[in-house]
Amino acid sequence: MSAPNAERPGLSYRSAGVDIDAADDAKTRIGRLVESTRTAGCIGEFGAFGGMFRAPTGGRPILVGSADGVGTKIKVAIDAGRHDTVGHCLVNHCVNDILAQGATPLFFLDYVAFGALVPAVVEAVVAGVAAGCRENQCALIGGETAEMPGLYTPPDYDLAGFIVGTVQEGETLGAARVRDGDVLLALASSGLHTNGYSLARRIVQERLQLAVDQPFPGEGGATVADVLLRVHRSYLAAVRPVLGRVHALAHITGGGLPGNLNRALPATLDALVDTRTWEIPNAFRVLEEAGQVARDEMYRAFNMGVGMVVVADPADASSVLASAEAAGVPAWALGHVAPGTGQVRFISQ
Amino acid sequence: MSAPNAERPGLSYRSAGVDIDAADDAKTRIGRLVESTRTAGCIGEFGAFGGMFRAPTGGRPILVGSADGVGTKIKVAIDAGRHDTVGHCLVNHCVNDILAQGATPLFFLDYVAFGALVPAVVEAVVAGVAAGCRENQCALIGGETAEMPGLYTPPDYDLAGFIVGTVQEGETLGAARVRDGDVLLALASSGLHTNGYSLARRIVQERLQLAVDQPFPGEGGATVADVLLRVHRSYLAAVRPVLGRVHALAHITGGGLPGNLNRALPATLDALVDTRTWEIPNAFRVLEEAGQVARDEMYRAFNMGVGMVVVADPADASSVLASAEAAGVPAWALGHVAPGTGQVRFISQ
Repeated sequence: MSAPNAERPGLSYRSAGVDIDAADDAKTRIGRLVESTRTAGCIGEFGAFGGMFRAPTGGRPILVGSADGVGTKIKVAIDAGRHDTVGHCLVNHCVNDILAQGATPLFFLDYVAFGALVPAVVEAVVAGVAAGCRENQCALIGGETAEMPGLYTPPDYDLAGFIVGTVQEGETLGAARVRDGDVLLALASSGLHTNGYSLARRIVQERLQLAVDQPFPGEGGATVADVLLRVHRSYLAAVRPVLGRVHALAHITGGGLPGNLNRALPATLDALVDTRTWEIPNAFRVLEEAGQVARDEMYRAFNMGVGMVVVADPADASSVLASAEAAGVPAWALGHVAPGTGQVRFISQ
Repeated sequence: MSAPNAERPGLSYRSAGVDIDAADDAKTRIGRLVESTRTAGCIGEFGAFGGMFRAPTGGRPILVGSADGVGTKIKVAIDAGRHDTVGHCLVNHCVNDILAQGATPLFFLDYVAFGALVPAVVEAVVAGVAAGCRENQCALIGGETAEMPGLYTPPDYDLAGFIVGTVQEGETLGAARVRDGDVLLALASSGLHTNGYSLARRIVQERLQLAVDQPFPGEGGATVADVLLRVHRSYLAAVRPVLGRVHALAHITGGGLPGNLNRALPATLDALVDTRTWEIPNAFRVLEEAGQVARDEMYRAFNMGVGMVVVADPADASSVLASAEAAGVPAWALGHVAPGTGQVRFISQ
């Protein structure tokens, strides 16, 4: 090995943009947050190679897994320097996805990747994840914090999450349970949730020409960041008490009502959505007008106020609506299921 | 709503950089790959909100989960336009992480995020993931493909993965099983695996001034891409037949031997690693010299040829070594465990 050269100093991991001390600092900060999500199924301690959780027993349990991110909502968080909500969105999003199969959460793992790792930001992001885990009685059993110089441009970072829940075999929800004459019940979204942000950000920046700290039109003084960072709602509390009465659930994410409600339909039935049954919330109307976005495109890109659709027997509609109300989630009769070809049809008269 | 304005045309999701058709195309391409990983535990079909897998039964099964990425190895894949190996690395990395608890794989989910989604690249990435899943008898039950304009600069993308495996309660491996006098057995790495890439890339680009398609020094004509993209080795086949004889496993990832082998030690024992027992592979020596990297730093940033360390009773050493050899993994006696304070100590005489 040749001697170090003064003009070409020896390289280190840190000189290449990776700060192991920062990673250790972040890990220390995360420990307390992870502990706050501990549930009865947890085994072992924080810091192992893999997180451990007791497998569900009794009956014929099925594990349901889902992976997701928060899309470019993360850019709003970064622009606003408000890092403690997107993790909560991520968990709630994943909870809703497995709830659509009838599953309730067991545990969660996260992946956060930075251009330059800032321990306080890692802590804020994981604080959001932990808040979501606590809300949904879901243990945060592990995760990865990566520093990837050259891939992410500081202060950018990305966040992905992975959930595992469980449902008994024979109790899975879905299209196979849906019947002609079933009702469609809408559960209100809390905002844009985690979809349509690339379009929303472009409209806000280019058409409305608003920065994240400026008031969003028609929102009573709430800023762009306030409106766009509203936490993706979890429907677990609203739906869990009546899961046995539900035929299918559609989580309204990318693709909107037409691209998600169809996933809850068999090939012989259509979903008829009556668009007169709710008022599209202000934020979507502002984006639609400012961006001159076609109405069809709005329904594909955004949830338009409907975060989850419950498909159930008409006799169970009032129970489902009451359960949602009890959980503080506005809910209403959105339409019904009729013979068709697996399509979502909008009706307005 | 005001009429569309010719000077300010109506915006669409596509105009904001999100191509739903490309996402649908990618999803179609992925379906066949997902099917290729199907195992006995899988339930339901590709395309549901969450992937389903039968929970392990019999005895007292524990689920072990792990999340990971491939670090800036992804940048080598992007630079080389060779997208079908990093997914394999990712799965093998995750498999090794849960193997360290004694767990074997059940299922996997991936997250791939692009600046601009290219269906053929998604397909290649997922082909790598599926190859890793098939190698490890692990079902790919779901995942997320995201298009995030403004966060990733095309052609950049990132890849994260999540694994769930299982181990019987009472059969988990780890520091608590390790005894004074235990042997340390090294299982050879196949290359850099997925750690140290930010440093390695900087050395290759700035000091060696080599592009990804140029020959890497001393590798018989293999290019930089060939050497740096070698697939992270899975140790499942090598270790599974002898898991009952293993006390602890250390997967040598970020932090190297000193930062990972310590995780397999109780507070009262040290690991004594004899550095004379193996020759550090050429790629690490080239990087060390070209980067004038201190030897200690090399051991922290890279695996230096040791991808996994098995801690076992001396009486079981030959069985473990034979199992590794049978799986085609070079293995050797690396050192031993002695009274101490939970540290990894290098000895060379």
